[in-house]
Amino acid sequence: MLRSGALRLCPPGALRGPRGSASPPARESRPPPRSFASEAIRVDLSLPNPSWSKDMRLLFDQFMKKTEDGSWKRLPSYKYVSPQSTEVKTFFPDAKPVKGADMPQAQLFPRSLEEGRGFEYAMFHNHVEHRTVCIFQGGPYLQGASGFLHGGAIATMMDSTLGACALRAGGVAMTANLNINFRRPIPLCSVVVINSQLDKVEGRKLFVSCNVQSVDGKTLHSEATSLFVKLNPKKV
Amino acid sequence: MLRSGALRLCPPGALRGPRGSASPPARESRPPPRSFASEAIRVDLSLPNPSWSKDMRLLFDQFMKKTEDGSWKRLPSYKYVSPQSTEVKTFFPDAKPVKGADMPQAQLFPRSLEEGRGFEYAMFHNHVEHRTVCIFQGGPYLQGASGFLHGGAIATMMDSTLGACALRAGGVAMTANLNINFRRPIPLCSVVVINSQLDKVEGRKLFVSCNVQSVDGKTLHSEATSLFVKLNPKKV
Repeated sequence: MLRSGALRLCPPGALRGPRGSASPPARESRPPPRSFASEAIRVDLSLPNPSWSKDMRLLFDQFMKKTEDGSWKRLPSYKYVSPQSTEVKTFFPDAKPVKGADMPQAQLFPRSLEEGRGFEYAMFHNHVEHRTVCIFQGGPYLQGASGFLHGGAIATMMDSTLGACALRAGGVAMTANLNINFRRPIPLCSVVVINSQLDKVEGRKLFVSCNVQSVDGKTLHSEATSLFVKLNPKKV
Repeated sequence: MLRSGALRLCPPGALRGPRGSASPPARESRPPPRSFASEAIRVDLSLPNPSWSKDMRLLFDQFMKKTEDGSWKRLPSYKYVSPQSTEVKTFFPDAKPVKGADMPQAQLFPRSLEEGRGFEYAMFHNHVEHRTVCIFQGGPYLQGASGFLHGGAIATMMDSTLGACALRAGGVAMTANLNINFRRPIPLCSVVVINSQLDKVEGRKLFVSCNVQSVDGKTLHSEATSLFVKLNPKKV
């Protein structure tokens, strides 16, 4: 549930977004209380909300413009994960969830923190160029060294973006290798752009790479290469 | 704040820990409401709580036994990060927090989810062998593929363990490279052991590696090598 102090999380000016812009209607600023899969709430969380800074809103609007000719597509994102465990279990037959674990309560990791406090992001995919771009604002609950994002939070967003790129090229796939170079720390509450692309496909193997840059493109924060493995090579 | 449903997150039997064991007193099961640095709450979160499964408690007790002769030391862990930004800012003079960002609200990423829902862990360090071991129970809010931990959650816990190992060898250091091989998925709510060790020191560079194994040691879930860079080489 949105806490009353949530709006104070943003830097001053963050709420002065381009009101009345061409972006789709923002999702409700006060989402329904947390509930579980049985209630089947499917709220698309990759839409603007009041915690998004001006930079985040401007970037979102720029990418929404690119969707108009169909070259780019916005990827929706939800708190609850679609069951794919059949494929995971076929690939790893002995990988079993803990007996009795209360799975309906499970949430997608990058969507499990409250609005504005953790991962605020939206992804866009270009099917012709096999590229996925993620615009990402890392909130105050993602801290590592004082005032900066935790390496694990950066890795999480890179893995998610690379995975989205791989998924669109090869169906359900899992990360087999993730090799990250952290070059410059990312200040908390700032916005960065993660650019990923499919580099090569070899049978079940999908090679995807990405970098993380500041909004103005002048600072390269991180780079990564990755290998994803298709779980069901027949299904794309 | 602990939500009323928190105890239902654990698999059946998870609460039947070894009561009356030699472990130190568990931390309060109902922590104080979330508050910020100005209130200076310093609760050590690397102690047992009611969400810990039997496996987690047994492992914790085993490592606490090892601390008795002084060869191993339990590492405390807090929600709020000690200010180190002076060192980060000296190393990266142009890396500035976003203007006006409300930093007192910031929380250490792996401690920012509610009890039992995210990262439950405790670390132990052996100063002679330069090893850090983390016992880790990943809760239902860390989901990637349905029923399994997100790769980013595994990366986060690996980075934290490797970082703790590097910190004890070389003072304040930041991750420069993290190269992970994900071999077998980790079921949600299960317990794994992360074994890290310092492999080599070259000037400011600290090479640290780790693996993630099941409690019985029979399953190798992941492996990683990493490079950390000391921010202030004079200070150890």
